[in-house]
Amino acid sequence: MRSKGKQTLAVALAAGLGLAAAASWSAESLQDVMKRRNLSQQDLLAAAKTYVPTGKRDEFLAFSSGGQSGQVIVYGVPSMRILKYIGVFTPEPWQGYGFDEESKEVLKGGRINGRDITWGDTHHPAISETNGKYDGQFLFINDKSNPRIAVIDLRDFETKQIVANPVFKSEHGGAFVTTNTEYIIEAAQYAAPFENKFVPLEEFNDKYRGGVTYWKFDRKEGRIDPKESFSLELPPYSQDLSDAGKGPSEGWSFTNSFCSERYVGGIEKGRPPYEAGCSAKDTDYLHVINWKKAAELVKAGKAKKINGHDVLMMETAIKEGILFLVPEPKSPHGADVTPDGKYIVVAGKLDTHVSVFSFEKIQAAIKAGKFESKDPYGIPVIGMKDALHTQVQLGLGPLHTQYDSKPCVAYTSLYVDSQVAKWNFCEGKVLDKLSIHYNIGHLVTMEGDSVEPKGRYLIALNKLSIDRFNPVGPLHPQNHQLIDISNDKMQLLYDMPLPLGEPHYVVAISAATLKPGIRYKVGTNSRTDKPSEGAARAGEEKTVKKGNKVEVFGTLIRSHITPETIEAEVGDELTIHLTNLERAQDETHGFTLSGLNVHASIEPGKTVTVKAKLDKEGVYPYYCTEFCSALHLEMQGYLLVKPKGWKPTKVTAAKADYTKADYDKQLKKIADTQAVIDQVVGYITSVNYKDYPDVVQLMEDATDQLGRMKDAKAKHEEAAKKSDWQNATLWAEQVWQYQVKAADIGLRAKTYLEQAGAKKVK
Amino acid sequence: MRSKGKQTLAVALAAGLGLAAAASWSAESLQDVMKRRNLSQQDLLAAAKTYVPTGKRDEFLAFSSGGQSGQVIVYGVPSMRILKYIGVFTPEPWQGYGFDEESKEVLKGGRINGRDITWGDTHHPAISETNGKYDGQFLFINDKSNPRIAVIDLRDFETKQIVANPVFKSEHGGAFVTTNTEYIIEAAQYAAPFENKFVPLEEFNDKYRGGVTYWKFDRKEGRIDPKESFSLELPPYSQDLSDAGKGPSEGWSFTNSFCSERYVGGIEKGRPPYEAGCSAKDTDYLHVINWKKAAELVKAGKAKKINGHDVLMMETAIKEGILFLVPEPKSPHGADVTPDGKYIVVAGKLDTHVSVFSFEKIQAAIKAGKFESKDPYGIPVIGMKDALHTQVQLGLGPLHTQYDSKPCVAYTSLYVDSQVAKWNFCEGKVLDKLSIHYNIGHLVTMEGDSVEPKGRYLIALNKLSIDRFNPVGPLHPQNHQLIDISNDKMQLLYDMPLPLGEPHYVVAISAATLKPGIRYKVGTNSRTDKPSEGAARAGEEKTVKKGNKVEVFGTLIRSHITPETIEAEVGDELTIHLTNLERAQDETHGFTLSGLNVHASIEPGKTVTVKAKLDKEGVYPYYCTEFCSALHLEMQGYLLVKPKGWKPTKVTAAKADYTKADYDKQLKKIADTQAVIDQVVGYITSVNYKDYPDVVQLMEDATDQLGRMKDAKAKHEEAAKKSDWQNATLWAEQVWQYQVKAADIGLRAKTYLEQAGAKKVK
Repeated sequence: MRSKGKQTLAVALAAGLGLAAAASWSAESLQDVMKRRNLSQQDLLAAAKTYVPTGKRDEFLAFSSGGQSGQVIVYGVPSMRILKYIGVFTPEPWQGYGFDEESKEVLKGGRINGRDITWGDTHHPAISETNGKYDGQFLFINDKSNPRIAVIDLRDFETKQIVANPVFKSEHGGAFVTTNTEYIIEAAQYAAPFENKFVPLEEFNDKYRGGVTYWKFDRKEGRIDPKESFSLELPPYSQDLSDAGKGPSEGWSFTNSFCSERYVGGIEKGRPPYEAGCSAKDTDYLHVINWKKAAELVKAGKAKKINGHDVLMMETAIKEGILFLVPEPKSPHGADVTPDGKYIVVAGKLDTHVSVFSFEKIQAAIKAGKFESKDPYGIPVIGMKDALHTQVQLGLGPLHTQYDSKPCVAYTSLYVDSQVAKWNFCEGKVLDKLSIHYNIGHLVTMEGDSVEPKGRYLIALNKLSIDRFNPVGPLHPQNHQLIDISNDKMQLLYDMPLPLGEPHYVVAISAATLKPGIRYKVGTNSRTDKPSEGAARAGEEKTVKKGNKVEVFGTLIRSHITPETIEAEVGDELTIHLTNLERAQDETHGFTLSGLNVHASIEPGKTVTVKAKLDKEGVYPYYCTEFCSALHLEMQGYLLVKPKGWKPTKVTAAKADYTKADYDKQLKKIADTQAVIDQVVGYITSVNYKDYPDVVQLMEDATDQLGRMKDAKAKHEEAAKKSDWQNATLWAEQVWQYQVKAADIGLRAKTYLEQAGAKKVK
Repeated sequence: MRSKGKQTLAVALAAGLGLAAAASWSAESLQDVMKRRNLSQQDLLAAAKTYVPTGKRDEFLAFSSGGQSGQVIVYGVPSMRILKYIGVFTPEPWQGYGFDEESKEVLKGGRINGRDITWGDTHHPAISETNGKYDGQFLFINDKSNPRIAVIDLRDFETKQIVANPVFKSEHGGAFVTTNTEYIIEAAQYAAPFENKFVPLEEFNDKYRGGVTYWKFDRKEGRIDPKESFSLELPPYSQDLSDAGKGPSEGWSFTNSFCSERYVGGIEKGRPPYEAGCSAKDTDYLHVINWKKAAELVKAGKAKKINGHDVLMMETAIKEGILFLVPEPKSPHGADVTPDGKYIVVAGKLDTHVSVFSFEKIQAAIKAGKFESKDPYGIPVIGMKDALHTQVQLGLGPLHTQYDSKPCVAYTSLYVDSQVAKWNFCEGKVLDKLSIHYNIGHLVTMEGDSVEPKGRYLIALNKLSIDRFNPVGPLHPQNHQLIDISNDKMQLLYDMPLPLGEPHYVVAISAATLKPGIRYKVGTNSRTDKPSEGAARAGEEKTVKKGNKVEVFGTLIRSHITPETIEAEVGDELTIHLTNLERAQDETHGFTLSGLNVHASIEPGKTVTVKAKLDKEGVYPYYCTEFCSALHLEMQGYLLVKPKGWKPTKVTAAKADYTKADYDKQLKKIADTQAVIDQVVGYITSVNYKDYPDVVQLMEDATDQLGRMKDAKAKHEEAAKKSDWQNATLWAEQVWQYQVKAADIGLRAKTYLEQAGAKKVK
């Protein structure tokens, strides 16, 4: 049923793309593929805009909260390929997170009332900023259910710290950073007493409280400093999303709220539910806070200690003139400061408008003392009209706003309409609308909440995917839709399923700004960034027994674990420190003790510690869980747990029957393999390999492996002298193993050079 | 620097694709994009072959093991988009897996010696088969470290059962199914005593053992039946990957081994490491087992009970003639039966050949009693030459083999060469080779280990990605490379990073074969597939207190939790059952009690149970963790834990001050919204919506929401009669909330119909 017109198009296409000539590697032309897969020309353009060929990189990296998975998701833009799930609040064994002792210490920091919390409800990631620009050094993320903030270091993409909020019982409005990451902002959600005490709901208005915490970030240490952090007491208004001022509004922060009705539900008692009572009034309050002055007041001793934490009480804040309210259309989601710092855009999700509040007008009202009223707690309320720059009708269910690199251009998500609206916040007019699929929550543009948004792409974070993807049961993936915003009209490019977790917000940064490392300095505790006390160097491995404590200082290298046997008795407490001696990029080793719930991931240079209580006698194999080389299955050992007081009976292990012929065969194999290695090395040194840092690294690794041969060679020669053919044959085999690994690395380097077009040198 | 030739190409392209005419929606032409993004014509073709436009589906679904993450990864082919991580051995909060009591029961089944194991080292997934074809009903996956097998139901993609191996201490060669999924095969890895006792390594040869377990699968129950399962004792040879016979070889199974040297390392004592001793000899053994006869022997009472489990001892197996060995090139990985069941392909990773063993020849040797020797345990050894069909030199490090839809065509991964070899196993010749990046382990073709491989795509499961993707720290993603195998020459299409876990093997099935459900029958315990005793219907919610046990039977629906208050005392044990009353696809609700480490995911129809020990007084907010509707933040409640013996003092809650005017405003809002709903319903019923089952479902859901209005309407009218403006206003607000949700669903249906091109009916 092909039309003649289409056939002509086919010929033009095939000729135009020169695919006829390239047909040798594929029988199908582009036109054939488009027809078979039913692709439109728009589809092809979208494919060309998002496809990242092998070996090429993405332009931006997106950091997405994982919602209830408790993790952070990292993906590339525009390919929308997920690169990593970072364990944050939830133990994750692939990373050894929550399994090794070092990361258990990080999780311990997030205990609530002494209770281990093994998950989190992550919502809003924030990248550290310098002068309001993303600097790519740290990532912060909150936990809504168990009010906590985590710090991730973007040098190694590992979680370094978790701090639990000392006064809130839940929080939603975090993490947001000030322009030089002086503070990380965290706003409470469901009001509760600050102290960990029961207070009846009848005393909600008087004794339940909301608030905002300002966590002090010590950039040099790369950690939050809880002692220098403080909170501001606020009314029980269900504080929500927040943002820090910038430029003219620097030093201030803004926090939304909902349920300023202070409604208490009770549907089981015949009362209307929260959803009815919390959305009954037309407006809620935007909290306007002078955090710089608040910090000074805390420094000056004007805070009250609650649960050991500095809290600036409302009364003080009102008296000192650092806290104000502005009515905003009811049940808002985002409070998003414009890149120029002049406006705060608020979208009331049950209203059809976005409201653009002017920081200048707010300040003018404050200076003039022009307030329309006070709230029940005495906080001055600025009239909505006195604070508004403009309001723009966008559609049903506006939620969040992000900014373009073009001046005054903003994008707002419309939840009920399932659309993205592009509009001008200076002039207050709608520019474009695009339908997305389905029920958009947050949205994100590239560095779109910084002072210098990068434009180009927008991602719609849809909350439901319904029928977008192949069905995978009642629990669906989410759908992040990539949209091209470089032109006047938005263009939908790509549907990305989210396979684990329910993301809320994403921040995206130019990939070029990030400079992650690929290995650790040998012997590093990666969670403290300090040398590990359990580190061991090659040849210095040992097992120490003191009382019922067995402590192993071991190492890992392709393809053996030292030690290969660990002996202990029932009742012993076993501690194993393991250092990965590799230098090669990506040469991670894993470690497990079968049946003892032990796992660790040990990247090059890292030292980790695992523990096990040995309460049952038995034989427990251990092995490297990473497919780290051709011989990875043989990277094994045994933990032997003996009954108390066990004494060996005389048993000699059977010996294999190796002969001189076996040994000679090994020598021939070694000579043959050396010839291959020499050939590869010959090629590499014949070209300008020194111009390729990656290859220079590989050569160092290969030399490392060959260096290890020496010792094994001495051993097999010595054994041969004594006609000990067992040891001669096996140590010779070990020499060959090192050769194979060196050859493996050499071949990798050779391929790299050939693909990179290395040139012959004299 | 553009050449004139390229400019001409640009014009031809733009014209050919008709993009000039379509320029209104995008300023950039295809040629512009290719130039800007530096895409070759091959890249564009690959993009066109893999891009799946919005709303379209993938052709195949791939199920990948997650390695040390303990999960299963589901992704679409050819788009390579990950659709789901299924929690299997590792707790995962997004799915509530390991957090609700129902899934905790599943994990309990995987305890080892009474110890909870909170991770797994998943290796080899297998899809259930009927007559050797994938039937898409169940997925099985093993845990190497803690020898276990899990059963996943592909109706809801949930893990239903975990069974721990009663005799092994580790395993690698599982899961593999027989042609009608009678048994799931699981082979041991590191030899150990079957009993949970210490035995010194000096007695390795005599008392350490390997083996193969045949887990009986009860398809009607969808569960493994441990009582009907059995193991076969084998020598301590480090058994490895396995496969079941099919067609002529049905009733037999094949299991590789390595370290048949039975070498015991001890590098810390100066002994050569395992890697040297375990690869010293030229051959290991392929185990050839008549499992059908083994099952009969067990039925006939010839097994020995070890740890309560039937084990067929070697001695019996040898005597009954059901166990044989064939030497195979050393340290092999895969043992892969050809689709016709005639051959078993084995690749010795330290050999450059693949070896094609003939089942017919093996049977001939057995019948003729032609054995070259016996192994140290008395097992007859068939001569390698007597069993070989052919050997083919492929390259360095051959590992695994998969099959094409074309007869005799196979693909083998070459680890050291980092290549895929395409070859003919009938004629024993190489057809093509393709370089991949980097260090390929397993590989998979579509249904490529079934009796009817589907061809089209191959995925190379590369173990290292090194420099393929934007760097994300020392721990790299893996790289699955998609390859087009429909033509004579293989073509690389796509690089897919794996963001979590280290996959080993993948199975891929035609998407059309899978028929997952989208909701549960109301009140289902999804882990048992049976009605939950905790289920509650709308209006029948209750809280029961008996002694110190508080039991809540609650429900969830957009956007409230019933009950909204739970009261208890310090020391109480709280049990909450929650039923999701939604019918709409994707309307999952979550549930958390802040600070108490409680989370649940409740998909439509599901009932889950969570528990908490209330050891501290206080106020604990709870809420729905899914962004389930515009009012999701208001889907909240409070758990109040009172001090023991607490008595209320007289406090009346403050009442909001609603007036008749507020109520009248509500009534107007309701009328306005009803007009919108009527308009939407008018459109829907004006077209042939009944032809779209998805829309019919949506209409049922909307009707459901509107149905709920009745009760709220009665309440606001009754309150208004009594001039109780508080309740009148709030219940009217609740009516409006139902309207908004109904309108939301209605708009979704309308958009669906418009996009689908629904037609007007009379």
